[in-house]
Amino acid sequence: MSALSLNAIYLARQRIAGLVRTTPMEHSPSLSKLMGVAVYLKLDSQQITGSFKLRGASNAIAQLDTDKKARGVVAASTGNHGRALAYAAAQLGVRATICLSQLVPANKVQAIRDLGAEVCIVGHSQDDAQCEAERIAAEQGATLLPPFDHPEIIAGQGTLGLEILEQLPQVAQVLVPLSGGGLFAGVALALKSTNPAITLHGISMRRGAAMHASLFAGQPVDVQELPTLADSLGGGIGLDNQYTYSMTRELCDQVHLLDEASIAAGMRHAYRQERQVVEGAGAVGIAALLDGLIPARGPIVVVVSGRNVDIEQHLRVMNGAEA
Amino acid sequence: MSALSLNAIYLARQRIAGLVRTTPMEHSPSLSKLMGVAVYLKLDSQQITGSFKLRGASNAIAQLDTDKKARGVVAASTGNHGRALAYAAAQLGVRATICLSQLVPANKVQAIRDLGAEVCIVGHSQDDAQCEAERIAAEQGATLLPPFDHPEIIAGQGTLGLEILEQLPQVAQVLVPLSGGGLFAGVALALKSTNPAITLHGISMRRGAAMHASLFAGQPVDVQELPTLADSLGGGIGLDNQYTYSMTRELCDQVHLLDEASIAAGMRHAYRQERQVVEGAGAVGIAALLDGLIPARGPIVVVVSGRNVDIEQHLRVMNGAEA
Repeated sequence: MSALSLNAIYLARQRIAGLVRTTPMEHSPSLSKLMGVAVYLKLDSQQITGSFKLRGASNAIAQLDTDKKARGVVAASTGNHGRALAYAAAQLGVRATICLSQLVPANKVQAIRDLGAEVCIVGHSQDDAQCEAERIAAEQGATLLPPFDHPEIIAGQGTLGLEILEQLPQVAQVLVPLSGGGLFAGVALALKSTNPAITLHGISMRRGAAMHASLFAGQPVDVQELPTLADSLGGGIGLDNQYTYSMTRELCDQVHLLDEASIAAGMRHAYRQERQVVEGAGAVGIAALLDGLIPARGPIVVVVSGRNVDIEQHLRVMNGAEA
Repeated sequence: MSALSLNAIYLARQRIAGLVRTTPMEHSPSLSKLMGVAVYLKLDSQQITGSFKLRGASNAIAQLDTDKKARGVVAASTGNHGRALAYAAAQLGVRATICLSQLVPANKVQAIRDLGAEVCIVGHSQDDAQCEAERIAAEQGATLLPPFDHPEIIAGQGTLGLEILEQLPQVAQVLVPLSGGGLFAGVALALKSTNPAITLHGISMRRGAAMHASLFAGQPVDVQELPTLADSLGGGIGLDNQYTYSMTRELCDQVHLLDEASIAAGMRHAYRQERQVVEGAGAVGIAALLDGLIPARGPIVVVVSGRNVDIEQHLRVMNGAEA
């Protein structure tokens, strides 16, 4: 079906078994009532490090050979991927270097350090940090681990799909946040390989949805990056995308784009009805249901991907603001 | 050691295995930094129905014989016990009747109904509801299930203690919210039976701590019930208490009482630092650490017992209020 096989996801799961958490599948009475069919939240926001990213990061590091493990891993990420790599590397006794620009706030830098990574601060942009990561990889032989377009990252994220199948084998539709496509491709591969009748919805924000624009253009394209509540979904998919673009094109039944007000409503619903703190990117599936974008065919699983929101922003949104 | 044995807790666990969730043991970087030793949060706030109460309720229903199961169960509870009984009974195909007074707000009544229980609305106080529950038990042969002072309830709550031992066998101190003592007695029995060197702290609010007053008096006594953020910890322990008073007296190393401002601070810490929505009663362990009441001997486990807070109140507290 794809460059990657379902078996790669089972191998990933065996590798990361002691490193990640099987996360709850929570029945949502409020969303079930709204939809008229059973709706469940797959709460990877309760994953260790606060997002699904730990699945892929753990797998990508764990499958390195002894020599590569000894040389360490390197990445440029201020967000969930960086946190996950830092934690997974520390657990596996591998040195991780996370490159950050001088613009990254001190508390984010400290959070990465607290998780056990070395931090390398350089330049004034994410591009500068990425260049430094590539330099370290070339010079020290460290393995550069990209955030999504990598077979072992995709396979790791796919373990979330296996959990859905085990926790709710009768699932009919799954809503997955869609950004670079690592999570989407992995989860969709696990589900569609097992049951092609499962409908897969990819959900993005309207402001800067690179995968949607690429699918529309018929090839990977760049889009302007804009501020959004779903900031974890921002960024391009890479013009030289090798895996996630084609897998998403093949496996995604429908893409939905959301306004900022809808994302805010999704975050508020998670808090008020489910007592869950969810970042904007993690709430897009709930938001799509609230917006009436999804047909009432159940059971429906909504992947809630992370909780690493700036807490001042979260509180503003809970108090009714849209950003 | 007690009227109840460790083996009863293992039997409970086997009985409820398919009904409850093994909940996360989450390392807290912020509290570990504060204490200078490793601190973990045992997040039973992520239990199904939103609190640990499902453990005891599931066990108490599951161990009934076929005849008793056919006659159903009954209780008077607007809170976590009622929710847990309603859910567990529905899962086990047993009829549950929850008696509520006319003063209980419609949304709480509906929530119990949504979980699958029959609701019986009678009278104008919790005492009226309790009388009706007793009448139904006597008349219909339904089993009256009290919220804490019952061996199978205690054994069910004790399964949380087994999870702590498995997730962190080197644990040195455990902080447990203390109210009627069902959770405390079960968890303490599991831990102290396995390793008597583990220190058990019971944490209550200053406003109406019935177990603390009873321990101080040398026998179960009534206290005035007062409004508190930790409302799930309110209520008496029963002047004819048979199990939890003596078990708590035997197994508790120290009881700590908290001001309302401290409980609010604990709830805010859970939200801001851990991205967790926690009810007041669930946050008392965090609050005790913030108040400097616990010596720095680690690892420390803080039992976070529930998330079923009135969300308007929670938001007020997050915005800085104390109630």
